[in-house]
Amino acid sequence: MSNELTKLANPGVEGLMPYQPGKPTEELERELGITDIVKLASNENPLGLSPLAKAAMERAMPELARYPDANGYYLKQKLSERLGCSSNQITLGNGSNEVLEILFRTFVGAEDEVIFDAHAFIVYQLLTQSCGATAVKTAAKAWGHDLEAMLAAVTARTKLICIANPNNPTGTFLTGDELEAFMDKVPAEVLVVLDEAYYEYLEAGQRTPSIQWLAKYPNLCVSRTFSKAYGLAGLRVGYLVASEAMTDLLNRVREPFNNNSLALAAAEAVLEDEQYLQQGIDLNKSEMARLEAYFTERNIPFIPSVANFITIEVGRAGAIYEALLKKGVIVRPIAGYGMPSHLRVSIGLEWENSRFMQALDEVMAE
Amino acid sequence: MSNELTKLANPGVEGLMPYQPGKPTEELERELGITDIVKLASNENPLGLSPLAKAAMERAMPELARYPDANGYYLKQKLSERLGCSSNQITLGNGSNEVLEILFRTFVGAEDEVIFDAHAFIVYQLLTQSCGATAVKTAAKAWGHDLEAMLAAVTARTKLICIANPNNPTGTFLTGDELEAFMDKVPAEVLVVLDEAYYEYLEAGQRTPSIQWLAKYPNLCVSRTFSKAYGLAGLRVGYLVASEAMTDLLNRVREPFNNNSLALAAAEAVLEDEQYLQQGIDLNKSEMARLEAYFTERNIPFIPSVANFITIEVGRAGAIYEALLKKGVIVRPIAGYGMPSHLRVSIGLEWENSRFMQALDEVMAE
Repeated sequence: MSNELTKLANPGVEGLMPYQPGKPTEELERELGITDIVKLASNENPLGLSPLAKAAMERAMPELARYPDANGYYLKQKLSERLGCSSNQITLGNGSNEVLEILFRTFVGAEDEVIFDAHAFIVYQLLTQSCGATAVKTAAKAWGHDLEAMLAAVTARTKLICIANPNNPTGTFLTGDELEAFMDKVPAEVLVVLDEAYYEYLEAGQRTPSIQWLAKYPNLCVSRTFSKAYGLAGLRVGYLVASEAMTDLLNRVREPFNNNSLALAAAEAVLEDEQYLQQGIDLNKSEMARLEAYFTERNIPFIPSVANFITIEVGRAGAIYEALLKKGVIVRPIAGYGMPSHLRVSIGLEWENSRFMQALDEVMAE
Repeated sequence: MSNELTKLANPGVEGLMPYQPGKPTEELERELGITDIVKLASNENPLGLSPLAKAAMERAMPELARYPDANGYYLKQKLSERLGCSSNQITLGNGSNEVLEILFRTFVGAEDEVIFDAHAFIVYQLLTQSCGATAVKTAAKAWGHDLEAMLAAVTARTKLICIANPNNPTGTFLTGDELEAFMDKVPAEVLVVLDEAYYEYLEAGQRTPSIQWLAKYPNLCVSRTFSKAYGLAGLRVGYLVASEAMTDLLNRVREPFNNNSLALAAAEAVLEDEQYLQQGIDLNKSEMARLEAYFTERNIPFIPSVANFITIEVGRAGAIYEALLKKGVIVRPIAGYGMPSHLRVSIGLEWENSRFMQALDEVMAE
């Protein structure tokens, strides 16, 4: 029946490989029988949960036998105030992964091509395949997106261009000027999604006014997430901002109740927790500087990063990843992103980063 | 751009109408300025959250800045023990709505037909449309599924048959003998999903051994949910049980992290809370009997139900729904299910049902 079933499946499904998440701490604990593990593998906020988010969830608990607010009314209202757009321009998702999936399912068909960078977030590849569409990968320029190459790759079949800014796993970013010049040249019938999962880590001067651009570029949309700087990775809340017309289409495809009640409550609350957000950004900045100094001192090449992780070139990355695991430090191998010599290291708490540096020193000396 | 965008969208998207959820309590409060509202609109467990689930979520909170377990390892393990199947036969979803969506996305294409009952759960219709497939609705027999008609509707293009057992919104059910005789006649290349969202409310003698059937019918799969008898509607946990081969395909399409950490923790815990489950089932049984007696006494026709709701025939259902709303009682109009003369009433707590009966008496006398 296995072969029979595969024949019944939609084109593209058989070729899909499930996403490989960062190794969970508990799994390594089970395997090695050790505790005190440092996980720097999934670009999570090392500060842990915002206390305001926790309190909001406590308040929401008594109502959990009831269905969630199917439209995320209050969260969309609060987001729209922050972003300077209408509630009708926001699509909520179970993580930004889901809003990207909704975008693909709404627009991308089997005849279409989707353009993204060779080292971009791997979910673009998975979604393209699951729609039965054709992935067109452009080579990177200094580990960043080559916008000229992306434009050159546009054909009559191009439906969507995915741009991660900052990019994961390279930490590179594109300026507002570069992106505007790019958008001015993209044909109106080609959609562009700016995936800004790491937006909050950018310096004020680096942040592109992408939400404001929506009025100018009706083929543009912008995705963001609560999983990184807002520290709600375990709760799965992302959102996509687009024109009202595009949002209307996306909401037809979106499942009702796709964000659960606690996720909605926590996301609403954490938007108010500016102290938590700033503390995470400050910590990230100072620890990033410390890691850069360490890599420089050790002559370990790294890709300068504006996000909450840094990607280093270590040659035999698989072996070093395994050796670090044995010392209780989880980082992220990124061979699946076309970078078999690199490792991606999330910026953790001060002691976590110190443990990582010590472990890497030991591994390099072995 | 609105028309332009619609042209860029996949077939079926434009025709989709978003799912209409039951009216939320807060919305009615906002509109009418009243409190003390009784919501009997969404077949939720009136007991509220299980205390074991609450405690498990409290324990999970410190880790919420971390991504969830992408594979739901522990929940699948516990479920597999309960169900007598392998973990590799279980696909977890963000509500059973999502597992159904994953099933459709894996198997249903634009050339396919999907068969379901004219009064079945409306999500089958939405998913069929969003896949660009053709819905084939069979007429009901005494408000239940007409399995003979469903078999007769099978063509060379049929990919999937959806059977809700018990059915929502009619509360009818099919026996194991009926279903086995049906499965024996369904062609091997036609998939069948048994949607057992209300399974736990069935008497022991009514419950079909559907999980055991999977070995016999490789084209069968079974979906269940934690949103009804387990009282976790606000957390969104559903699952689909199928052969390992089918599950492997479904998991390629499933997004990672589709269940958030608190949802996983709560679902695992509530499986242990047999007291909570039984209390809800007992309450449902006694209150169902009280409502049936009331409808009989008032000569209000109702469809005998094995689930946690009962559907009554009231003629001008829209007007009665509105009049009940004004009295602070929310029930569910089901014109969208092809039943414009009926209202679906969830079984609530004793005082909630009493409030409903009193309100209906008043409305009927107006």
